[in-house]
Amino acid sequence: MKLYDAEISGNCYKVRLMCALLGLELELTPINLGAGENRGDDYLAVNPRGQIPTLVDGDAVIWESQAILTHLARTRAPEWLPEETGALVEVMQWLAVAENECLYGMARARAALKLGRPWDVEQSQALGRAGLEVLDGRLAANDWLAAGRPTIADIACYPYVALAPEGDLPLAPYRAVAAWMGRIEALPGYVAMSGLTRAADLA
Amino acid sequence: MKLYDAEISGNCYKVRLMCALLGLELELTPINLGAGENRGDDYLAVNPRGQIPTLVDGDAVIWESQAILTHLARTRAPEWLPEETGALVEVMQWLAVAENECLYGMARARAALKLGRPWDVEQSQALGRAGLEVLDGRLAANDWLAAGRPTIADIACYPYVALAPEGDLPLAPYRAVAAWMGRIEALPGYVAMSGLTRAADLA
Repeated sequence: MKLYDAEISGNCYKVRLMCALLGLELELTPINLGAGENRGDDYLAVNPRGQIPTLVDGDAVIWESQAILTHLARTRAPEWLPEETGALVEVMQWLAVAENECLYGMARARAALKLGRPWDVEQSQALGRAGLEVLDGRLAANDWLAAGRPTIADIACYPYVALAPEGDLPLAPYRAVAAWMGRIEALPGYVAMSGLTRAADLA
Repeated sequence: MKLYDAEISGNCYKVRLMCALLGLELELTPINLGAGENRGDDYLAVNPRGQIPTLVDGDAVIWESQAILTHLARTRAPEWLPEETGALVEVMQWLAVAENECLYGMARARAALKLGRPWDVEQSQALGRAGLEVLDGRLAANDWLAAGRPTIADIACYPYVALAPEGDLPLAPYRAVAAWMGRIEALPGYVAMSGLTRAADLA
């Protein structure tokens, strides 16, 4: 499988992490966002949104991290995406938190402060904190976000949570989140990315 | 079934539209966002994010519009959420567009201009236009966003597309989007909401 990737992207890291946990090899093709490579005709033919990541798996070309996680679970590891309706609905709820509070809160605060992107830092941090509170409430009573076991919802939420301190969102107040980060780090095959805060940093 | 609802919310309208298309009755419980009713303890016990919509269906309490659409499809109308992996992955891709370009682009531009929310209008419009271009490209070659038939992906994207003109995002340039809006409006049971642009307005 080939992944169009950028090391700094938490969305790409979701795919790298999932593949590492599943023991799947990935050939990484770096896309230079600074040089606008993601807006070139060659890449737009692969991904019309001009975003990363995109996965190529045989004849399947799949853009968008949550769609890629769905593909990997369905084709390699069905236990990561439950079939049962109630559990699937739980996964969908936390995937939505990943696309909202995590991406437009935590990730935008980080992108503004670390990468100089033009997002409003205070608005992004406020949304990020709201997300951390909701995650902390959920994880205070549950080891995993959905279905009582690790699912793609955990993989979708984890990266921008663990990167939140780069957006000046301290994680120390969120004890249940920190414990959950430790559980994810303890999964066999776990890999990190640069800039991540680890559970041990919050002890 | 009971829906915690606000008439003005495109996210709530997704659920009202889906139920109308499926012929399901909904008891609407209006939540007064202006009075902060969504942040009250009673409502937070139902939905810890303090957002609308939330659906109550027997013992199931489900927050977040895409999770609710998933629940409705799985329990009432499985053809709206395909089981086959490739089709499911397509649905997930366009659900992500609904949560990104539609919500943080089109819907935020509308919320800023119509409701006085503090979002950056130009940034939101730029993201909204990017979404309309991607949707138009997809729909130029496909009647529906995923799986070759109407799915929850269409229902998730449609509301904030059809409300985009309220965010000063004209739809006339997007001919394939306009034709798709017409196909959705023609589905048996279709209902509108106030402020929607209809396909006939774009003819």
